[in-house]
Amino acid sequence: MKASYINDLEAWKSEFSFYIPITIRFSETDMFGHVNNVSPFIYFEEARIAYMRSCGLFTDLKGNEGIPVVADLHCDYHKPLYFGDSVQLFVKTDEVGNSSFDLHYMALNQHGDICLTGRGRLVYVNATTGQPIPLDEESKEKLLGD
Amino acid sequence: MKASYINDLEAWKSEFSFYIPITIRFSETDMFGHVNNVSPFIYFEEARIAYMRSCGLFTDLKGNEGIPVVADLHCDYHKPLYFGDSVQLFVKTDEVGNSSFDLHYMALNQHGDICLTGRGRLVYVNATTGQPIPLDEESKEKLLGD
Amino acid sequence: MKASYINDLEAWKSEFSFYIPITIRFSETDMFGHVNNVSPFIYFEEARIAYMRSCGLFTDLKGNEGIPVVADLHCDYHKPLYFGDSVQLFVKTDEVGNSSFDLHYMALNQHGDICLTGRGRLVYVNATTGQPIPLDEESKEKLLGD
Amino acid sequence: MKASYINDLEAWKSEFSFYIPITIRFSETDMFGHVNNVSPFIYFEEARIAYMRSCGLFTDLKGNEGIPVVADLHCDYHKPLYFGDSVQLFVKTDEVGNSSFDLHYMALNQHGDICLTGRGRLVYVNATTGQPIPLDEESKEKLLGD
Repeated sequence: MKASYINDLEAWKSEFSFYIPITIRFSETDMFGHVNNVSPFIYFEEARIAYMRSCGLFTDLKGNEGIPVVADLHCDYHKPLYFGDSVQLFVKTDEVGNSSFDLHYMALNQHGDICLTGRGRLVYVNATTGQPIPLDEESKEKLLGD
Repeated sequence: MKASYINDLEAWKSEFSFYIPITIRFSETDMFGHVNNVSPFIYFEEARIAYMRSCGLFTDLKGNEGIPVVADLHCDYHKPLYFGDSVQLFVKTDEVGNSSFDLHYMALNQHGDICLTGRGRLVYVNATTGQPIPLDEESKEKLLGD
Repeated sequence: MKASYINDLEAWKSEFSFYIPITIRFSETDMFGHVNNVSPFIYFEEARIAYMRSCGLFTDLKGNEGIPVVADLHCDYHKPLYFGDSVQLFVKTDEVGNSSFDLHYMALNQHGDICLTGRGRLVYVNATTGQPIPLDEESKEKLLGD
Repeated sequence: MKASYINDLEAWKSEFSFYIPITIRFSETDMFGHVNNVSPFIYFEEARIAYMRSCGLFTDLKGNEGIPVVADLHCDYHKPLYFGDSVQLFVKTDEVGNSSFDLHYMALNQHGDICLTGRGRLVYVNATTGQPIPLDEESKEKLLGD
């Protein structure tokens, strides 16, 4: 299993604890018979928002204070997902900067196989100006705390 | 070809003139091998917006004046669509009321087969209050004009 | 609340018992701030498949025997859905014919408000030929049984 | 503009020639008011398939011979895309291996601004066994030829 953001797979894997179950929708399959390659980014988004909320962060999605904006996203497809699979999508914070942070993702199917891994950087910005806002210490601790 | 909103198919069909080409996306297919049944509503929306713009209506989608809100949507699936098909999606106004109007839809594939028909009511509302706004005479004429 | 397939709302509503919870995905909202009008059809599909499985029907989605094909779909939008809403999507059988049946749908938000209602006909067909296959008595009973 | 796969932006940009126009669909926006971060992967897929077809490759999507499977995808979001934007999505081959190749992506809006960049590896596999199939010399030349 190769991915530029994974050095030691077992160590990397062991650092996850937060996850959400994912329900694969029929419309997310494609004519190749498995889950289309676009769909993991839908799942990453769902898991990312649930994770940030579990950290007590970014609960105001109307953006009155600031909103997390996706700077990049990367997904590695290790095994196909199929309609009917029971998926656990794990999320963890990998790194926290001044106004941005990296989240990592891992999707396991019902057999415990790693089907997807991924990562992406989020920048915390002012919803009106788009300018980066520094993360306060409390937020940084929450992100690193779990 | 049965659909509750079509009395005389040939007459109904002949009243269309506006259409847009639709590019079927691979992610819009599903594991049954053809276009998923959700996708036509994506196409209807794309065609509806293009049609309303062609009538000079609702060009301000930020909703400072009013926005068209979908009251209902109905699609009949007559023939499957496949990835790679060249689709023409036709739209016409069927009926205009005080603050709402009905649009009808028809999708032809590259062989001229009717693959989809549909209809739906739109209500013109104040974006802030959600209350219906009467359509002015100019707008009504534009909708009925084509 | 008007919809062509509802005569008596209270009676119609009371006939539902099967439902699934729906998780609204962020990507299913649109720039108007609420759930896009295409998304209910994704939810209907998810609920429909869960419902059919609960009836012991159509568990073989590879289509070796027969597959249910959507003949038409109709959705009425009564109240907007928002990201974060807790949605219960109810499904019931309305009518069973020789090789087809009508399902009805109702979506309630966390306040018990009816946000969506809908209906659609499914035809049971041979996956290879596309020809309708008669439903056996056991399947009909299962559909009507709940 | 930072992206791990771009050394010299001007040189990188100048190597693109193939592109397709992208129609942004209203349903692809989200409640933040711009195109949702999932949608670029839909556009990448559409452009990738068009590009491969333009190279005379992988025209048989039924997979009787072999199919291109996505190994990974990476997208950097440089500027938001909005509903109504005119987008040109460029694709080029970056590297060709024995049975896999890297494609790069660049999306320009109507002002010529780079809104998205991306890359991803495709592996050519036997549709039945999932085993990699070596690319023949003709295919390699086609991919590198543009």
